[in-house]
Amino acid sequence: MAALAGFAEFQTRMRERIEVQLAQLLPDEQILPAGLHQAMRYCTLEGGKRLRPLLVYATGQSLGAGVELLDRAASAVELIHVYSLVHDDLPAMDDDDLRRGRPTCHKAYDEATAILVGDALQALAFQVLADHAWTVEPLRRLRMIEELAMAAGSRGMVGGQAMDLAAVGRQLSLPELEDMHIHKTGRLIRASVTLGALAAGLTVQDKSFHQLREYAEYIGLAFQIQDDILDETGDTETMGKQQGADRARNKPSYVSLLGLGEARSMADRLVESALAALSGFDDRADHLRAIARLVVERKQ
Amino acid sequence: MAALAGFAEFQTRMRERIEVQLAQLLPDEQILPAGLHQAMRYCTLEGGKRLRPLLVYATGQSLGAGVELLDRAASAVELIHVYSLVHDDLPAMDDDDLRRGRPTCHKAYDEATAILVGDALQALAFQVLADHAWTVEPLRRLRMIEELAMAAGSRGMVGGQAMDLAAVGRQLSLPELEDMHIHKTGRLIRASVTLGALAAGLTVQDKSFHQLREYAEYIGLAFQIQDDILDETGDTETMGKQQGADRARNKPSYVSLLGLGEARSMADRLVESALAALSGFDDRADHLRAIARLVVERKQ
Repeated sequence: MAALAGFAEFQTRMRERIEVQLAQLLPDEQILPAGLHQAMRYCTLEGGKRLRPLLVYATGQSLGAGVELLDRAASAVELIHVYSLVHDDLPAMDDDDLRRGRPTCHKAYDEATAILVGDALQALAFQVLADHAWTVEPLRRLRMIEELAMAAGSRGMVGGQAMDLAAVGRQLSLPELEDMHIHKTGRLIRASVTLGALAAGLTVQDKSFHQLREYAEYIGLAFQIQDDILDETGDTETMGKQQGADRARNKPSYVSLLGLGEARSMADRLVESALAALSGFDDRADHLRAIARLVVERKQ
Repeated sequence: MAALAGFAEFQTRMRERIEVQLAQLLPDEQILPAGLHQAMRYCTLEGGKRLRPLLVYATGQSLGAGVELLDRAASAVELIHVYSLVHDDLPAMDDDDLRRGRPTCHKAYDEATAILVGDALQALAFQVLADHAWTVEPLRRLRMIEELAMAAGSRGMVGGQAMDLAAVGRQLSLPELEDMHIHKTGRLIRASVTLGALAAGLTVQDKSFHQLREYAEYIGLAFQIQDDILDETGDTETMGKQQGADRARNKPSYVSLLGLGEARSMADRLVESALAALSGFDDRADHLRAIARLVVERKQ
């Protein structure tokens, strides 16, 4: 009970913290081109579950790192995530009008602005990690940039989105569906944990580095299954996006392949595996454990 | 005469070299998602003047650096440039059907693919510089990444494109037009020279670093003026894109603001200033000098 209350407070504090960080990193609305900078702030600020920054902070905390050390990694992964949402919502992609309960970027502004907002947010993510004002050891920062670039690129998130678009109206097998999601959302979720671990001082040789990545891979898949469940069972108002949108598009999903009950047990089993991957960690990893449970218990 | 022949050979050799580099860095066509990787290769390979890689190589050479040291910087700036062309050509942006004499990405594939190709090429550019297989000093590589991210982002190239779109059908003053171009093309041209200088071992404290950046700023503007002149006077076949396309769109240009004669003299004066910025350099900078002249003498 104390741990749960602690996690609720952690979530609130970290969400406030990432909001302040992002607000500082994004160019001011008055800086030219003002319209572009307004749109970048509109899409990035005041919204979202901030799952990826929470993962960065919780990973760092599980390793005893101070929160200041984690801010840039948390900001960079969220900037990549937001850019991907802005581009995914475009008419040529998923064509969504509503995101986080507000008009999507191309609806609030226009398509050209939405394309440029995404492009600029991606560049900013890498700038934030390379900034010469940041004092974390250079080799460690280069490794973060490499991890993030690979997670974001054609063999990561962008590749997953390409697979997703190619799958509309087709019947996918479970392995194909899993492969698509591992790329589309899994890689960036894993990168969040990886960047948190690197910022906190782990190296790729450390055993706990690989345990954390294993944890991340399990919750990444669980997250996606829960997304499919919510698309089937959630309501539009709570989710801030159109319920049933994926089903209406005839997108393959865990629910359509497995049925609701089996999709739910699969998500639960993945969370158990994620928790098992953390078995060697002490109670400083409790926020990571709470995030694993949150992933399948969330309503949005 | 010998110098000119030397430059022609340099151009040919470096264009062949960057082609090989890019072909190696881009994921193979068979790697999944194969359609995305095919499109990335279609847009990047076998085309273009490769001005930015030429600048990287010529800058490095002016400082005595070996060509192997410059390959990654040359590839990264070209990947950013190609991604920007793919996105600029989209229907929501400049809506161009023809690029380098071939159908643009969204024409050869589709809009969603073109958006994703650009996104993936941008991520790849940063991955190339951060790659742990590259042995250049970490702080120097971080500085390159920071320079490239700033040149590409909302206060660089993407910002310039936003200004450009906002300017269609409006009358711009000469300072406004210049500001737009400094961002849209100037920053990435300057980054090409900066990355070449950093890879070759200069630091931001070096006097020659700033002379090279000055050179780059002059040729960046001259390049844009020549673009406007070619849009007015070139022919579609030589240019590989639609002649008069900008004029038809009622885009502000140096030619419409100054007239053809004054635009030409302005470009010539900028090239003279670029050459003056290099006055302290020996004959190893002759390829940079030749590029300055090429910028205003080119027919495409």
